[in-house]
Amino acid sequence: MVGGGKDAFIGAVHRIAARIDGEFDLVAGALSSTPERSRDSGAALGLAADRCYASYDEMAEAEAARQDGIEAVAIVTPNHVHAGAAKAFLARGIHVICDKPLTATMDQAEDLARAVRAADALFILTHNYTGYPMIRQARDMIAAGDLGAIRVVQVEYAQDWLTEAAEQGGQNKQAEWRTDPARSGVGGSVGDIGSHAHNLACFVTGLEVEKLSADLQSFVPGRRVDDNAHVLLRFQGGARGMLWCSQVAPGCENGLRLRVFGEKGGLEWAQEDPNYLWFTPFGAPKRLLTRGGAGATAAASAVSRTPGGHPEGYLEGFANIYAGAAQAIRAARQGRRDPVLDLLPGLEAGLAGMRFIEACVRSSDKDAAWVTI
Amino acid sequence: MVGGGKDAFIGAVHRIAARIDGEFDLVAGALSSTPERSRDSGAALGLAADRCYASYDEMAEAEAARQDGIEAVAIVTPNHVHAGAAKAFLARGIHVICDKPLTATMDQAEDLARAVRAADALFILTHNYTGYPMIRQARDMIAAGDLGAIRVVQVEYAQDWLTEAAEQGGQNKQAEWRTDPARSGVGGSVGDIGSHAHNLACFVTGLEVEKLSADLQSFVPGRRVDDNAHVLLRFQGGARGMLWCSQVAPGCENGLRLRVFGEKGGLEWAQEDPNYLWFTPFGAPKRLLTRGGAGATAAASAVSRTPGGHPEGYLEGFANIYAGAAQAIRAARQGRRDPVLDLLPGLEAGLAGMRFIEACVRSSDKDAAWVTI
Amino acid sequence: MVGGGKDAFIGAVHRIAARIDGEFDLVAGALSSTPERSRDSGAALGLAADRCYASYDEMAEAEAARQDGIEAVAIVTPNHVHAGAAKAFLARGIHVICDKPLTATMDQAEDLARAVRAADALFILTHNYTGYPMIRQARDMIAAGDLGAIRVVQVEYAQDWLTEAAEQGGQNKQAEWRTDPARSGVGGSVGDIGSHAHNLACFVTGLEVEKLSADLQSFVPGRRVDDNAHVLLRFQGGARGMLWCSQVAPGCENGLRLRVFGEKGGLEWAQEDPNYLWFTPFGAPKRLLTRGGAGATAAASAVSRTPGGHPEGYLEGFANIYAGAAQAIRAARQGRRDPVLDLLPGLEAGLAGMRFIEACVRSSDKDAAWVTI
Amino acid sequence: MVGGGKDAFIGAVHRIAARIDGEFDLVAGALSSTPERSRDSGAALGLAADRCYASYDEMAEAEAARQDGIEAVAIVTPNHVHAGAAKAFLARGIHVICDKPLTATMDQAEDLARAVRAADALFILTHNYTGYPMIRQARDMIAAGDLGAIRVVQVEYAQDWLTEAAEQGGQNKQAEWRTDPARSGVGGSVGDIGSHAHNLACFVTGLEVEKLSADLQSFVPGRRVDDNAHVLLRFQGGARGMLWCSQVAPGCENGLRLRVFGEKGGLEWAQEDPNYLWFTPFGAPKRLLTRGGAGATAAASAVSRTPGGHPEGYLEGFANIYAGAAQAIRAARQGRRDPVLDLLPGLEAGLAGMRFIEACVRSSDKDAAWVTI
Repeated sequence: MVGGGKDAFIGAVHRIAARIDGEFDLVAGALSSTPERSRDSGAALGLAADRCYASYDEMAEAEAARQDGIEAVAIVTPNHVHAGAAKAFLARGIHVICDKPLTATMDQAEDLARAVRAADALFILTHNYTGYPMIRQARDMIAAGDLGAIRVVQVEYAQDWLTEAAEQGGQNKQAEWRTDPARSGVGGSVGDIGSHAHNLACFVTGLEVEKLSADLQSFVPGRRVDDNAHVLLRFQGGARGMLWCSQVAPGCENGLRLRVFGEKGGLEWAQEDPNYLWFTPFGAPKRLLTRGGAGATAAASAVSRTPGGHPEGYLEGFANIYAGAAQAIRAARQGRRDPVLDLLPGLEAGLAGMRFIEACVRSSDKDAAWVTI
Repeated sequence: MVGGGKDAFIGAVHRIAARIDGEFDLVAGALSSTPERSRDSGAALGLAADRCYASYDEMAEAEAARQDGIEAVAIVTPNHVHAGAAKAFLARGIHVICDKPLTATMDQAEDLARAVRAADALFILTHNYTGYPMIRQARDMIAAGDLGAIRVVQVEYAQDWLTEAAEQGGQNKQAEWRTDPARSGVGGSVGDIGSHAHNLACFVTGLEVEKLSADLQSFVPGRRVDDNAHVLLRFQGGARGMLWCSQVAPGCENGLRLRVFGEKGGLEWAQEDPNYLWFTPFGAPKRLLTRGGAGATAAASAVSRTPGGHPEGYLEGFANIYAGAAQAIRAARQGRRDPVLDLLPGLEAGLAGMRFIEACVRSSDKDAAWVTI
Repeated sequence: MVGGGKDAFIGAVHRIAARIDGEFDLVAGALSSTPERSRDSGAALGLAADRCYASYDEMAEAEAARQDGIEAVAIVTPNHVHAGAAKAFLARGIHVICDKPLTATMDQAEDLARAVRAADALFILTHNYTGYPMIRQARDMIAAGDLGAIRVVQVEYAQDWLTEAAEQGGQNKQAEWRTDPARSGVGGSVGDIGSHAHNLACFVTGLEVEKLSADLQSFVPGRRVDDNAHVLLRFQGGARGMLWCSQVAPGCENGLRLRVFGEKGGLEWAQEDPNYLWFTPFGAPKRLLTRGGAGATAAASAVSRTPGGHPEGYLEGFANIYAGAAQAIRAARQGRRDPVLDLLPGLEAGLAGMRFIEACVRSSDKDAAWVTI
Repeated sequence: MVGGGKDAFIGAVHRIAARIDGEFDLVAGALSSTPERSRDSGAALGLAADRCYASYDEMAEAEAARQDGIEAVAIVTPNHVHAGAAKAFLARGIHVICDKPLTATMDQAEDLARAVRAADALFILTHNYTGYPMIRQARDMIAAGDLGAIRVVQVEYAQDWLTEAAEQGGQNKQAEWRTDPARSGVGGSVGDIGSHAHNLACFVTGLEVEKLSADLQSFVPGRRVDDNAHVLLRFQGGARGMLWCSQVAPGCENGLRLRVFGEKGGLEWAQEDPNYLWFTPFGAPKRLLTRGGAGATAAASAVSRTPGGHPEGYLEGFANIYAGAAQAIRAARQGRRDPVLDLLPGLEAGLAGMRFIEACVRSSDKDAAWVTI
């Protein structure tokens, strides 16, 4: 693991997600930006002292040289470190599981893209919400035509943790780096959570956004990036959509929500109640499809661990990305490409996300003019 | 009553709303577009034969001449008739309670505006959703500063009854006229329901929309007006918003929903569950305020008829407009202006709605360019 | 109307319910227990002075003598007055619409039963919750076999308004009489709301309770009747059930809720969200049936006034009892018995309710021994 | 691990729960009832061949003899095996984490109790629902007096998976053993899930059930144990309650739900939406307390892994029992008793559960007579 030391939120999540199915062991790390902190964090996690590295470069080199070196690395640093770290491991044939968004800048993204394409290793991006069973089912139902041609997509991701200037005062490391353009990228809310919403909408519908018009705001005085964004979407093939993301919406904890409407029916899903998928075939009563329940399909069951009514949550959804990665890595050992990769976000999803973020900022700079992605 | 004969939906609603509090008696009508149907409908409602009129002009003239002539008229026709009918009664000092939107065209709206301003009678527009007790409370809480300065407004009104081409085949009178620009106006979904959403957002926040950018669609082949609209909003004072209205969203029955977020808190309300108002003061748990419950304020109680847990619905909300009208009319008899008029939508709300509809169409025609209202 | 003067809750509800469909006019009343208050209340409601009576006896006599005398009377007094008042009108051929429970005592109930059976007039009891459209549909679905043989019935009615000793201090008239055995009867919560729950369970399932075991409590010091009751039910044919009613359950406003499970499926309904009926055919996803929606059947539509998504509430459900009464009265004028009477609670439901209340108290007095009803 | 081979449900759950926090490694097992299946299952889980044992006796002996022998064992067999297996390990000082209920019979329970009391090892029972963060918070709030004296407890646990005779036909191993009195015990639904409901009610309120009256049913023809139970509860100190458990309630997946009402407030929690706790202080609006949200207390935070809005589920709740066990075991190594043991169900909870099950059956056999526990 690169990153994920003390004060980190997402590192701990990755560690649990990797552990749930018993497919990964954490054996080495460059967990912090200073050698000392890196060693302390490693010790706290039970890593051997000689596998707590001062930097990702050192780690990549040393691990590649070991007989028992790591087979895959999780990169859970702030965004501006993703590209450099990933390249170091990919170049040595070590598989990379990287947090989203892809990078902090488009230049970094393109640089990383070249490295991924040249590498003899997998690159998986943890757009973790795609791992939820009912999201997999939604994608499958739409692909099967249950909704007919898609007309309207409503996606939103609302939070409230940046309602006040939490990045000031030095108390909140998460707020600090996520509102710092140098570490996070040009997008604030659009980068941190809007990119998840965009990814989810595309993953579920199978459609790409063609054009968008974005109105970004930075409501909190002194904030250097957007903390709220309103985006109009036009998809390939004629579907239209709206995307709202916000970090200043009091009462919203982690309100990622997707609604898709087609000629024949509608679907609705909310991340905070992820075991439920609402499906209305036009002209019939709404149905509550539950993970593990009578309406669950193979797409959901394949990534479920418990029966209906035994709720799975965020960590299990995240773990499905890791479980998929493990499956793909096992196939790669034998020179095969596992079809699970069709379900796992990777470089292309990452590039699409970067184009989305960049297009939002560009559109907003031009007073919400349409921008082609 | 003008309009509201057989096959009408909203006429029956107005009649019940007028009756609930026992403030109005229905005694005369020009209920249909043909004399014969008008008489039949009147008879079915128990009107005296000599007060079933062939036209609103005939009715206005005759009723104005009677000693026991009507004191107020409800106009519940398709939109293109509103202006002519209202003018006929206003000119004779008869109060008008008119269905929304104000008229079918901006020209009609301006014409009617002159008549209203010149008249010695009240003009009330049934933007009925403003009559819900928890909406009144939401407005009051925001005015009292419970949310601080407003930042973000999310409003939507989604239905599914026009998912297919219901206007074709002659079976569905409602679908027919509501998708006919000559009777309904240039707006389809934006006129029929988007105008309600716009009105509700403004009523609750106390803010006006300054600029908008609208992307209108007509998804159903052959449809002559929009059936889905995505609108970016910029309010006076810096608040931003999104408005979505749709008649092609399977699974949405009458999904009017409003969320408002400010510096200090957030509110959420949904028309289909109107007795609940969700309030989150930033940094504190979400609270479920219920009509008639411990968190209900005077603004809600003033328009409630039953204790908490005894749900009131659409008809009671609608009846609150009528009850307010009755109160205002009683004051008018004595030459007074009742302060309830501050809560009742009238000409100004109607004009704002027409400008909203017209701006949506204009913006969409220019590929969603910003339009100043 | 008898009863329903100032400080009354249910009188105002009856008046609105009677008015919603325009079938009844309120023209006479003995509205309070003193002549003066009765006159004041009558004047406030716009009754003619000569039709504001000092007592129900006076009213029954005078109205029966008038050419334009009342055709039906609503009795909305405390329970101990029901029998006397109803007898006075029934004896003169005036139809009676009476609030529940039937009477305060079993003796009064039997006395009234004789009068009803002897009378040439209808007797309708406002177990108003049976008037909700989705309750009518639930009954219909069960009768049609959609659930198969019924196995389990869970019914509850929880409130919190008597959590403290509201009956003390003289401020709360409702609390005062409803906790006074002389006026309310031997049952406190079981009489006031448990009887509704019992009635609803029987109405929907079509089953009668055969035996029960009741554990009644009076939690608030000084309270003279039960304020919480736990009851085991055994129905004819083998179904089993539980009934909980409480007036001391903080957070419960008017929580009447029914769940029925059979060999083939389950149903769930909650009074506070009355437009929804949840139906699960065993082995299939749960369906949300909505009043006016795609899953609504004729039984619901027959008593609906608005389309799906335009919520109807407590007053409309109540009004359906009045509308049914009007229909039955019109048939009675012509000597016919209208089949709507099969859906309207009357004497038999009232007697069943009295036996239920009495059995609960008797069982609880014997430490929750089984009591045959 | 003892038990948990192929076809087992709860074994896989225990393994994930043990793994989530990285505190346990699975290194040995007697996973099935036959040596061969035990070895196959062990191999599938990656156990060394010499640590796949044919029986728990063999395993206990061998592991106790190894230098690197197991420190704790998870027993996840059918109930009738619990006592024998647990005794084998306890006798050798190996800590036991055992699935519920304690045993199949009261004799076995008392036998095991003696062994636990004599042992120099911990005994933890996986009444896993006590591990949910908001359940820990509910317990804490009640202990702190937020509800005042408890009056009413409503607890239910409804499922539908045994609506039909799933135990027949040999296809459903879970249904087979759970409805077999020899393996499961005298209780069917009361043993399998009623015991969870009982445990949860006692854990949260801090009260013990003093007397109960139970009406057990076996609705499915041929079923050898109860599949539905209605139970009246009387708690120490005067609180009253109802417990419903069912395996024949179509539409209920895993509907464990608890409501507690006291003099000053009410709480409500549902296992299928476990991140929410509803709290109503009497006379104030209902509050939605969320795990990780503004209303979460230290009791919840101590067992949370993710921020609010990132839902945790069944496996994390289960894992909290394992995490607590790990903490207690680490203290035990140093001869200390960790206070976390006050929160972990153990022998006493297990015995209380056995007395509950036995009392339910005994009461029901006497036609729901009161039975003192």
